[in-house]
Amino acid sequence: MTHLTLADCRAMDARDPLAPLRDQFTLPAGVIYLDGNSLGAMPKAALARAQEVITQEWGTGLIRSWNTAGWFELSRRLGNQLARLIGAGEDEVIVTDTTSTNLFKVLAAALRQQQGVAPQRRVIVSERNNFPTDLYMTQGLIELLQSFGGARYELKLIDGPQDLAAALTPDVAVLLLTHVNYQTGFMYDMAEVTAQAHAQGAVTIWDLCHSAGAVPVDLNGAGADYAVGCTYKYLNGGPGSPAFLWVHARHQEGFTQPLSGWWGHARPFAMEPGYDPHAGIKRYLCGTQPIASLAMVECGLDTFAVTDMQAVRAKSLQLTTLFMDLVAQECAGFPLRLNTPVDTRHRGSQVGYEHPQGFAVVQALIARGVIPDYREPRIMRFGFTPLYIRFEDVWNAVAILKDILLTKSWDQPQFHQRGAVT
Amino acid sequence: MTHLTLADCRAMDARDPLAPLRDQFTLPAGVIYLDGNSLGAMPKAALARAQEVITQEWGTGLIRSWNTAGWFELSRRLGNQLARLIGAGEDEVIVTDTTSTNLFKVLAAALRQQQGVAPQRRVIVSERNNFPTDLYMTQGLIELLQSFGGARYELKLIDGPQDLAAALTPDVAVLLLTHVNYQTGFMYDMAEVTAQAHAQGAVTIWDLCHSAGAVPVDLNGAGADYAVGCTYKYLNGGPGSPAFLWVHARHQEGFTQPLSGWWGHARPFAMEPGYDPHAGIKRYLCGTQPIASLAMVECGLDTFAVTDMQAVRAKSLQLTTLFMDLVAQECAGFPLRLNTPVDTRHRGSQVGYEHPQGFAVVQALIARGVIPDYREPRIMRFGFTPLYIRFEDVWNAVAILKDILLTKSWDQPQFHQRGAVT
Repeated sequence: MTHLTLADCRAMDARDPLAPLRDQFTLPAGVIYLDGNSLGAMPKAALARAQEVITQEWGTGLIRSWNTAGWFELSRRLGNQLARLIGAGEDEVIVTDTTSTNLFKVLAAALRQQQGVAPQRRVIVSERNNFPTDLYMTQGLIELLQSFGGARYELKLIDGPQDLAAALTPDVAVLLLTHVNYQTGFMYDMAEVTAQAHAQGAVTIWDLCHSAGAVPVDLNGAGADYAVGCTYKYLNGGPGSPAFLWVHARHQEGFTQPLSGWWGHARPFAMEPGYDPHAGIKRYLCGTQPIASLAMVECGLDTFAVTDMQAVRAKSLQLTTLFMDLVAQECAGFPLRLNTPVDTRHRGSQVGYEHPQGFAVVQALIARGVIPDYREPRIMRFGFTPLYIRFEDVWNAVAILKDILLTKSWDQPQFHQRGAVT
Repeated sequence: MTHLTLADCRAMDARDPLAPLRDQFTLPAGVIYLDGNSLGAMPKAALARAQEVITQEWGTGLIRSWNTAGWFELSRRLGNQLARLIGAGEDEVIVTDTTSTNLFKVLAAALRQQQGVAPQRRVIVSERNNFPTDLYMTQGLIELLQSFGGARYELKLIDGPQDLAAALTPDVAVLLLTHVNYQTGFMYDMAEVTAQAHAQGAVTIWDLCHSAGAVPVDLNGAGADYAVGCTYKYLNGGPGSPAFLWVHARHQEGFTQPLSGWWGHARPFAMEPGYDPHAGIKRYLCGTQPIASLAMVECGLDTFAVTDMQAVRAKSLQLTTLFMDLVAQECAGFPLRLNTPVDTRHRGSQVGYEHPQGFAVVQALIARGVIPDYREPRIMRFGFTPLYIRFEDVWNAVAILKDILLTKSWDQPQFHQRGAVT
C-alpha cells in the first residue's frame, strides 16, 4: 500500500462525480458527520416542503388536503419512488408506520403462508446480533400466538453467517436477516442466501435498514419474499420518518396481515363494519399516517434523483476502503480491532472498530466535531454516506482519531459518563 | 324557544371567555371550519416548532438531538401533558404510533388479562357503527390467533347503546366502545358503562378519538381499563399526528403487549437479543417515532394551556345547542333528520343530520366555504371546536345551509361526483 496523503484525498474529491450532490444537504459547520447510517443529514429541500405541508396543506387546505394535496396516496407514491433504489416494481412498496410494526406485519404474513403449506415448520432463524427490535418483534408475535394456545414457534439465533447453512433445517419456516448488519457492516449476498433458504423450504424476510440508499439492492432479482426498512438513515427522510415495506407480488394477495386498519381496506370511506383488504400492497397499510414526517421522505428520496445505486456503491467502497487504509496507516499500534469485512462483496457502507474504551473515544471524537456512533460492545461505528461525505472528510476524521488516541484525550471523566446514547 | 338573531350570536361571542383562544390558530379567510373533529386547525405555534425541529434539531443537532433535544422522551412527555385532559395520571399515557396500532396493543393486553382469569370469556363486544378501524383491528387480531390454532374469539356488534346491557353476557371478555360516536355524536357515560362492564366481568377499552379535547374525560375517575385516541382532531396535533394510549396503572405491569419493539425495552441501547419490557407505560412503545409530526402535538396540546375541559365543555354545549336551535328555526321543512342526541348528557361536540342528498349538500357547503364532513350513509357531520369556533360562525353556517337547501344549489352535477371523500 502506498502512503496516502491529504493531497490524495483531495484529488479523489476533485474527480468524484457525486461531489456536487453534497450541496443538496445542510451540514453544520465544523462537523464531520459519519453517522448518516443512524440519522441521515437534512436535505435543504426538507424545510420548504414541511412549511408547505404545515401552512398551505394543513393551515389553509385543512381537511380538504387529504384529497387535494394527495395525502391519501402519499404512502404509495413514495413507495413507488423508493422502489427503484431496492429493485422493486410498481406498487410493491409502501412507506408507512415503523420498521418494527412493518416487520410484525410481514412476519405474520410469512408464517401464515408457511402454515398453509408446511405447518410443521415452526422455527424462525435470525442472528444473535441482528438489530434487536427485529428479534423483539419476533418474540412478541411468538409469545402472542403461544399465550392464546396457538402454534408454538421458536426463534433460533445463529452467531453469524458461518452458521447459516447448518441452521436451515427442515423445521425452518422463516429466515429473518438484516441485509447489512448494524454492528459489523457485514452484507449478505441476498440472491445466494434467498436461494439457499428457498432450497430448504424457508421464506425470507430482509431488513434493509442499513441497505436502502447505501448499497444496491435487487429484491426482485434475488427472488426475495418480504422486506422492511427505514427511511431515516441513508434515505435522509428525517428523524423517525415512516418506514417501508415490500412484499413480492406473488405473495401480496394470499392473505391479509393482522394489523388490518382502515387504511388497508378496499373501501375505507364506505365505513363498512367488516374488513375487506385492498388489492395488492395497500393492504399492508394500517392507520392514519403522520403527514409532515411522511412528506419529507420525498425530499430524502429526491437526493438520489440524479444518481443511481451503482455510482453510490462505487463511491461508498472508495470511502470505506480509504478509511480502513488510513486507520491502518495512521493508527497502527493502537488497540483498534476492525469488525467490518475487508471483502467488498460483504461490506456495507460503514466501518466499525472495537476499542477497549470505545464509548469514551466516541465521546471524545464528538467533542472534536467528528460524529460516529457507538454500539455495544465497545464498537465505534463510522458510517459513510456517499451523497455528502468527502474523501477529505475521511482524512480529517482519521487525523482527529489519531490525535485523540495519541494524547489519550478520551481518558477524561466527562467522556465516560453514559446517558442514553444513540 | 325565542327567535334567535345574528345579534344574539354576536352577544354570545362578546361574553365568551374562550373567545381570545381563537387567535392561537391560523384559519383561512372565508372559511367556517366545522370539521375540527376530523382534522383540527393549525396552531400558529406549529410552524415555528417544526422549523426548529427541522433546521436546528435535525439539521444542526443531527443524531445528537435524540438526547439533547429530548426526542427519546417526547412520547412520554407529551403523554403527561395530555393526561390532564383525560383524567389520567403521571406516566399513564404515551403519545405514539396510530390509533389502530395502539388499539391492537391494548386489545391484545386486555384479552391476555382475561385469558389469565377467565379463559372461557371469548367475546369482544362493540358497536356496528363504531369507527370501522376499531372493528377491523379487532378482526385482525381474532383472525391471527385463530389462523394459528389459538383461542377462537368472536366480535359481537350491537346496534346501539340500547342493546348494551343485554350484550354483556358471561362470555364477554372485552367491551370496546368509542366514547363519542363518530357518526352520531352519542356519548356514553363512561363511569356508568365501565361499572356495568366490570359488574359482568368484562374489561373496557375506550376509544377517545372524538372525546379528547372535546369533552371532559375522567379515565381514572371512571375506573376504566384501557384507552386509545388520536391527537389530530380536537387536540390539533396536525395531519396524522401520532396517537395516544392509556393503561390503568393496575394493568401496566401485568404483561407485555405483542408489538414489543425496541422503544419499549427496559434497556434499548444495551442491544440485548432478548426482550425485557420497560417498567410502566413505556412498554407500549414500539418503534422509532416520526419526530417532526410528534413534536407538533405539543403545540396542539398547548392550545389548552389557559383553559380547562369544563370551560371547553360549557362552550361546546352552547355551540351545538345553538346550531340545533338555528337549524330548527331556519331550516324547518327541509328533509333534515337530526342524528345526534338532544340530551346533553349524551352529546359530544358534533351535530349530525341525515339528508337524502347529504353528500351533495356537503359538497355545496364546501364550495361556499362552510366545511363540515360527510359520513356514510347520508350524514352531514358538523364539528364544533370551542377553541376556535365563534357563535357568529354558527349563525353564518346555518344561513348558508338554508340558502343551499332553498335554492337547491346542491342539485348540480359537480356536487354529486364522489372521489375519496374524507
